[in-house]
Amino acid sequence: MLKVPKHQVAGHEAIGGNLGPLIDDSGRFYKPLQDGERGTKELAFYHSLSSDTRLPDRIRKFFPAFYGSQLLEASDGSGLRPHLVLQDLASNHLDPSILDVKMGSRTWYPEASDDYIQRCLEKDRTTTTVSLGFRISGLQIYENKESGFWKPSRKDVLNFTVDNVRLVLRKFVSSNSPVDSNMKPDCCFAHSVYGGPAGILEQLLELKTWFEDQTVYHFNSSSLLILFDKESLWEGRTPFAEVKLIDFAHVEEGKGVIDHNFLGGLCSFIKFISEILTDLNE
Amino acid sequence: MLKVPKHQVAGHEAIGGNLGPLIDDSGRFYKPLQDGERGTKELAFYHSLSSDTRLPDRIRKFFPAFYGSQLLEASDGSGLRPHLVLQDLASNHLDPSILDVKMGSRTWYPEASDDYIQRCLEKDRTTTTVSLGFRISGLQIYENKESGFWKPSRKDVLNFTVDNVRLVLRKFVSSNSPVDSNMKPDCCFAHSVYGGPAGILEQLLELKTWFEDQTVYHFNSSSLLILFDKESLWEGRTPFAEVKLIDFAHVEEGKGVIDHNFLGGLCSFIKFISEILTDLNE
Repeated sequence: MLKVPKHQVAGHEAIGGNLGPLIDDSGRFYKPLQDGERGTKELAFYHSLSSDTRLPDRIRKFFPAFYGSQLLEASDGSGLRPHLVLQDLASNHLDPSILDVKMGSRTWYPEASDDYIQRCLEKDRTTTTVSLGFRISGLQIYENKESGFWKPSRKDVLNFTVDNVRLVLRKFVSSNSPVDSNMKPDCCFAHSVYGGPAGILEQLLELKTWFEDQTVYHFNSSSLLILFDKESLWEGRTPFAEVKLIDFAHVEEGKGVIDHNFLGGLCSFIKFISEILTDLNE
Repeated sequence: MLKVPKHQVAGHEAIGGNLGPLIDDSGRFYKPLQDGERGTKELAFYHSLSSDTRLPDRIRKFFPAFYGSQLLEASDGSGLRPHLVLQDLASNHLDPSILDVKMGSRTWYPEASDDYIQRCLEKDRTTTTVSLGFRISGLQIYENKESGFWKPSRKDVLNFTVDNVRLVLRKFVSSNSPVDSNMKPDCCFAHSVYGGPAGILEQLLELKTWFEDQTVYHFNSSSLLILFDKESLWEGRTPFAEVKLIDFAHVEEGKGVIDHNFLGGLCSFIKFISEILTDLNE
């Protein structure tokens, strides 16, 4: 029995007869193959990743598990369509707070058409992509049983300034309401979510070490997905906070060069996270 | 007595009545202030740097010493013009081999005009700036007393491909002739120039550590200058290999964000250099 994911924060959504991903109850995520080269590229990437023996396990864990592709009735009623069968990343979490962070100071890739590059560049300049080396492209923050989630609109998220980003990364790990913009976030979950040996920062640093060396893939326009749930936190379960890599429709071969575009943005993001931890300690 | 520098590999040159930098015999380099905002910005940067107490000495050594500004007769005969008075980086070296590496996967800065951005972008896409996160913008390699220097033309350097860059970084530390394009570079100076505790790689890694943390300056369109001389090498003098940062006409305030554009390119450059050392060890 396929259904629309409850915890999707970015990308096309299968709501109101649109084409979008579906999930089942067994923890699988069915992502419709995008038209043209994008779909083919993303499928090829997942296949290449699963057969890549050079990829150490400590890095493989950052990618959603891949179960091949499957023909399914598309959510927009357009008939059968191939879908990627992936791990449903939200299924391990109860009421997860989620950040989708599109990485890189450019979202275009060198071989793209002039027209495509100009359109991406325009968006990169009006969001924080150029200034920060990343942009938040979606998020939800769980508040409590009564209020549920704070999930700003796509338009609001696209308009985030550098200061908005700084604030949201604090709200993400705070106990006070994310809705009230005058309230200073208390960052009371920062140590347990961002910090510690299994926390987000350590995971990001592990990823960074890999990106300083790997010259196989260039992750153009891919995202970091950051998930944690307060329920696990309260029950003391680990790992309750995870970093995952998603969206590979524009992955290119590295041809012996590191992915300096992703890596630069990753270092910038790491600086923001570590600053929150440093501020707490002072 | 001012004269035209012998070892300039990039930038405007004071030859044939053009406006360019001059040197004297005491090891000072007189750089004419560029017109408009550029000149003002570069002068302001040097002043701010010299009074910046946050800058650790291990980082300060990467910048040319700054002796203020001075009104001088410009090399193009246009009359008196303010000049930056800097350390002549080549003066410590006898017949230096020099690489000028313009850093970053973009040479424009976010606040620039659309027109300026488009012109930079065009050049960034046709050189290795976008693909590598840096481009070589000039070089000279000392061969021997008879042949002197190999100094490819500006046009040839601008046309360098990724493979050309890979090759040039090997030729830079080889004893066989850089001119012959069929000869495989022997990389026989790689260990002593790139490697070792005082070598180029260690210096680059020190710089990288700083760039992962500093949020004060964004070095748009600045260059790494890499110098060494075989004479010092043969005489066993150290440090014979130096990394310097130059060209600050487009430095912007970091405003609490790291310079991910420079840092990404630096990591990419580091990977190229460390690969040469790894290949030798295998």
